[in-house]
Amino acid sequence: MARNEFEPDWIHTPPAEGSFRSIFKWGAPDRFKHPNRRLYRLVKETFSLTDDDFQKQSIPLGNEVVEEVPAMKIPLSAVEEIQAAVGEKNVETGPYARVKYASGKTVEEASQLRKRHAEKVADAAVHPRDAMDVEAVLAICNARHIPIHAYSGGSSVTLGHQTPKGGVTLVMSTHMNRVLEINETDQTVTVEPGIFGPDLEQTLNDAPSLFQAENRYTCGHFPQSFEYSTAGGWVVTLGSGQASTYYGDAKDLVISQEYITPAGRIRTHDFPASAAGPDLDSVFLGSEGAFGILVKLKLKIFRYMPENRKYFSFVFPSFDQAVNACREISQAEAGVPSVLRISDAEETDVALKLYGIENTLIDRFMKARGFRPGERCLCIGHTEGEKTHARNVQRSMKKIAKQQGGMYITGYPTRKWEHGRFEDPYMREDLADFGICIDTLETSVKWSNLQQVYREVREYIKSRPQTVCMTHSSHFYPQGTNLYFIFIARFETDAEYTAFQRGVIETIDR
Amino acid sequence: MARNEFEPDWIHTPPAEGSFRSIFKWGAPDRFKHPNRRLYRLVKETFSLTDDDFQKQSIPLGNEVVEEVPAMKIPLSAVEEIQAAVGEKNVETGPYARVKYASGKTVEEASQLRKRHAEKVADAAVHPRDAMDVEAVLAICNARHIPIHAYSGGSSVTLGHQTPKGGVTLVMSTHMNRVLEINETDQTVTVEPGIFGPDLEQTLNDAPSLFQAENRYTCGHFPQSFEYSTAGGWVVTLGSGQASTYYGDAKDLVISQEYITPAGRIRTHDFPASAAGPDLDSVFLGSEGAFGILVKLKLKIFRYMPENRKYFSFVFPSFDQAVNACREISQAEAGVPSVLRISDAEETDVALKLYGIENTLIDRFMKARGFRPGERCLCIGHTEGEKTHARNVQRSMKKIAKQQGGMYITGYPTRKWEHGRFEDPYMREDLADFGICIDTLETSVKWSNLQQVYREVREYIKSRPQTVCMTHSSHFYPQGTNLYFIFIARFETDAEYTAFQRGVIETIDR
Repeated sequence: MARNEFEPDWIHTPPAEGSFRSIFKWGAPDRFKHPNRRLYRLVKETFSLTDDDFQKQSIPLGNEVVEEVPAMKIPLSAVEEIQAAVGEKNVETGPYARVKYASGKTVEEASQLRKRHAEKVADAAVHPRDAMDVEAVLAICNARHIPIHAYSGGSSVTLGHQTPKGGVTLVMSTHMNRVLEINETDQTVTVEPGIFGPDLEQTLNDAPSLFQAENRYTCGHFPQSFEYSTAGGWVVTLGSGQASTYYGDAKDLVISQEYITPAGRIRTHDFPASAAGPDLDSVFLGSEGAFGILVKLKLKIFRYMPENRKYFSFVFPSFDQAVNACREISQAEAGVPSVLRISDAEETDVALKLYGIENTLIDRFMKARGFRPGERCLCIGHTEGEKTHARNVQRSMKKIAKQQGGMYITGYPTRKWEHGRFEDPYMREDLADFGICIDTLETSVKWSNLQQVYREVREYIKSRPQTVCMTHSSHFYPQGTNLYFIFIARFETDAEYTAFQRGVIETIDR
Repeated sequence: MARNEFEPDWIHTPPAEGSFRSIFKWGAPDRFKHPNRRLYRLVKETFSLTDDDFQKQSIPLGNEVVEEVPAMKIPLSAVEEIQAAVGEKNVETGPYARVKYASGKTVEEASQLRKRHAEKVADAAVHPRDAMDVEAVLAICNARHIPIHAYSGGSSVTLGHQTPKGGVTLVMSTHMNRVLEINETDQTVTVEPGIFGPDLEQTLNDAPSLFQAENRYTCGHFPQSFEYSTAGGWVVTLGSGQASTYYGDAKDLVISQEYITPAGRIRTHDFPASAAGPDLDSVFLGSEGAFGILVKLKLKIFRYMPENRKYFSFVFPSFDQAVNACREISQAEAGVPSVLRISDAEETDVALKLYGIENTLIDRFMKARGFRPGERCLCIGHTEGEKTHARNVQRSMKKIAKQQGGMYITGYPTRKWEHGRFEDPYMREDLADFGICIDTLETSVKWSNLQQVYREVREYIKSRPQTVCMTHSSHFYPQGTNLYFIFIARFETDAEYTAFQRGVIETIDR
């Protein structure tokens, strides 16, 4: 790696206040993670580009301030009525708020915002202070037939924040972000839906000093969007965190919910189990605001014992063998790790670049033992829980991995992954500034159809020239896992991107 | 125990064929479990009875053949149409079938049947051969507005089999009881709903010889009614088996379901997880036939490794301490046992009698160490899973039990419990023949309200003179457990029983 090697001048200044870029940029305005030199070289190679192509950003940056938006669809009298209910300063009708709170984090939305396009915008963004405010706004909107949407962390990648018929968007994270109760006896926490992941986690970690609790706790839910998603969002959109294999998916964490609907309040029971017919919790889980607005949430919490964590990484000769090992780990009833992740050969090669492992001692050791680039597959993770349990699970995993042809390569790769695990999305804007799109699609698979889905989707993606396709599995169940496809490509038009993405979905669905 | 001590002449002959008794008697016609001498003595003591009171059964035995039943509410043409669809021999309209398939196993139903009362009876019992038969019957009944009910194992204790408006009862267990597929890769089994617990379990245990499977499997679900309940019944009524702490409740075992409704067939997805909105599986779970008739079921299966099981029993100085130990076991993240059960002081005293432990070496040892009858509480169970895991969980449990004042008393009490665990319900008829009622009520509790519910329900039950109240917890979750109340009492009338039972439910609900 030459010291004077060219490096693009990645944007490293926060987006202008009130700008389109400030809406679509991932994460904190002043935080960045730029592609490292190895990744930059891979991109140049893949797309036959040279340093010349990276002299200056070639795509609209969206630094213009949001000014023009479609006319409001709701009458001024409605806005005034809402203002009277929730306080004037909690109702925003300026162009910036109307665009911001109707935007999620999809590639499509970012691309449109770069071009200063914003059509399906909200009429007003309302920041409720409490459940009573939500109740008041719902009553007004219901009487006036005004659509209601909810916005919290804003990390949706399903176009879920768009408001095709205008209306009011309730911003749940501004005020309704409090921890209401920690119940150490039941190991539950009651929160308002707008609390961000890190705030919840920090509060639980610090329970002894904050609440005189006997133990430290963790929420157990760490999606890729952890830092910019909220507990309410986890539950109404469902989802799966990076430690789901151990702690469960978002739906498994819910003890009870409270929703406000135009027809009244719905509180579900908070018993640990029930056999009294279909339960309402399940119906509301993943309802994405369709049945009401979530205003309170009781979640399971878990003992926070990072001192017991046991890290491991393995390399396997092939994806097949990595999959077989993880299947055995998921079915062997020897306890499960919290983080468990296997990358296919293409992702492994990139991961070793990203984590800075390429050409290190570990890399040379792997090569010497016959684990070849382009074939070898990385497995990373760690165990959790009470000390002897965490240790015993790690031991069992080593045994299983070995049986499936895997080789233990220390906990180092896992630690490298862990260190930057919430920061990778920051690279999206850097690449997009030069017309390079990175996007992801995920599906659930049974063990018995994993290989078919993997092969067909990969074939589809790779049939497109100059397209990177990296795949990993990171949520494990006794009956199957997920396949998470990451593609990197250049698209001439938004339509070309959409058609390609549609093709991936149809291939999964086949 | 005197050799020539009087023992009642418990009924030990199968009920007359076609009799009322053959409908309400628990389990197989020719299987019995009579109260042992210690229990008999306890009953005499509790109710101030003498051997004289047990010279001859004092309550109607229901040995009369079922002959008279209310007139059929559906027209003969409907019966003929159904006969044409499913075959004549699969449609029963005789009085016996009409009563039998409209009866469950509640105390009320048994009491009525003893008196030859049967009012809410079915018009016809239909034994479908397959899903197509179900479809045909539903179409006919839908067109003619005839109510449909389902019957499978017949162990309902919620009056769920009664047919207040008559109609057709589909008997799912007669033909639709097949194992359709074992998928070893995904660790799933696909069955028809009418398969009985032991048939399913035996098939899974024998998978290597029956299906050339690599491993032996278990269904993981062992409710008290295991021998006379079916997989379909477990799922549509929900429920919790004796190993639920490890394997999960019935709802946790379901991968996918197929229902026939008058509006068409509904098949749910069989992915291991989904984030695509509210899932249909949850809505149908516990729906008790209200939304359609279950015709196919894919369930999780688990490796069957009884050789790894580690048995344990503990005695605690008080129920409080037993509860605290189980809470810690459920929350410590050291792995969980499969069977875990704590009895309160009253149940402990009876259990030690029933298991034949009273006055043995173990009993003397407990007493010597200060664990006194009337205070001490028994905890039994075993661990499961891969060898080192099962061993490590047992070790952790011993440690936790000790911290909470518990003493390890070998695995013997657990083995005694395990031996007769499905047979206790047989004693109900013996006692009822002498006017002594044994019944149960169960509720889910949070750790934080367990003691209150326990105290209040116990107070309510014990406020009635001469009433035994035994309580245990046997399903453990990090957030709580169950309280299972068993009461033994004499009631003068059915109305007195019903009012008392209603009082227990209202006390739980308070």
